[in-house]
Amino acid sequence: MTQGIIENLITQLTKLPGIGRKTAQRLAFFILSMPSDDAKDIASAIIDVKEKARFCSICFNITDTDPCSICNSPTRDKSRICVVEEPSNVIAIERTKTFNGTYHVLLGALSPLDGITPDKLKINELSYRVKSDSVNEVILATNPNTKGEMTAQYITEILKPMNVKITRIAYGLPIGSDIEFADEVTLSKALEGRREL
Amino acid sequence: MTQGIIENLITQLTKLPGIGRKTAQRLAFFILSMPSDDAKDIASAIIDVKEKARFCSICFNITDTDPCSICNSPTRDKSRICVVEEPSNVIAIERTKTFNGTYHVLLGALSPLDGITPDKLKINELSYRVKSDSVNEVILATNPNTKGEMTAQYITEILKPMNVKITRIAYGLPIGSDIEFADEVTLSKALEGRREL
Repeated sequence: MTQGIIENLITQLTKLPGIGRKTAQRLAFFILSMPSDDAKDIASAIIDVKEKARFCSICFNITDTDPCSICNSPTRDKSRICVVEEPSNVIAIERTKTFNGTYHVLLGALSPLDGITPDKLKINELSYRVKSDSVNEVILATNPNTKGEMTAQYITEILKPMNVKITRIAYGLPIGSDIEFADEVTLSKALEGRREL
Repeated sequence: MTQGIIENLITQLTKLPGIGRKTAQRLAFFILSMPSDDAKDIASAIIDVKEKARFCSICFNITDTDPCSICNSPTRDKSRICVVEEPSNVIAIERTKTFNGTYHVLLGALSPLDGITPDKLKINELSYRVKSDSVNEVILATNPNTKGEMTAQYITEILKPMNVKITRIAYGLPIGSDIEFADEVTLSKALEGRREL
């Protein structure tokens, strides 16, 4: 039997989502041919994530320091909070390099049928931040789908009495797309949200 | 900046072939949500491969013991050697569970234009094995493409004087395929190689 270290690595890699046996084999032989340091960097990045990852006690993003580097940064505008569902959404928005405020990660979206009620999300923590810090604007960047909309709606109702500006990210056509192939809902939202030039 | 541990893991994963940023991000968040032990198993499988992998001094397959478990096994038939180009081919053939002989990994295929001449491959080591051990059959399982054919041809010429049976794996239609869509060369090889029932 060749059930050796290569086979073991292949088996381990197939645990990952979307990695079948063939891809795992290709990856394993690539790792085998990589410079040792590069391969070890991958291994230690995996270990680091498991050993050091925690939630920021302010915004609930994943971080290795508490508060996270965004909440802790003196250059970020603490008066604007962008509310997202998941830590991966923070990465997506950060990559635009256009937002200089802070975040609040709900760690999910409302879905009563699945048992995700408001108390399961970091909504109380958000109202606490809005109440106690001098927050001017809460940008709701939950997903533009049923759960995300419901969550945005719910948070709006909770925060409305607090006299804070609440905004929702824009709906419309994605850049580079084609009107011909846009779905009706997106297109009607794009028309509805038209702006004067 | 969120350039933290998650971003680092994403960057590390994009070093792998076929893993773009989006896939890397999906994998990273999956790893984050995995049981710690599973994630660490992946990390240590990577490290093991880099630290322990070496070539078997008999067959040149990748192994962590020398000789490898196949060359060392008392139940494998040492009189038949299956010659393949790469260690990954050994895994593929082992998976068929139909071959009980041993292997010889050439670590490549002849390609004079790329500077891969016979001395760059483990061909001398193969003739040495055939000469010194009691080998009855050498099965040439190099790839059915130009380089693999050339390599098989070359090895046949080298081994012919040694009075050993030399065979080539069969060409034909892959199981589950459709004659209608088979390419001409494969189909003509399949006709040529027909067997009486």
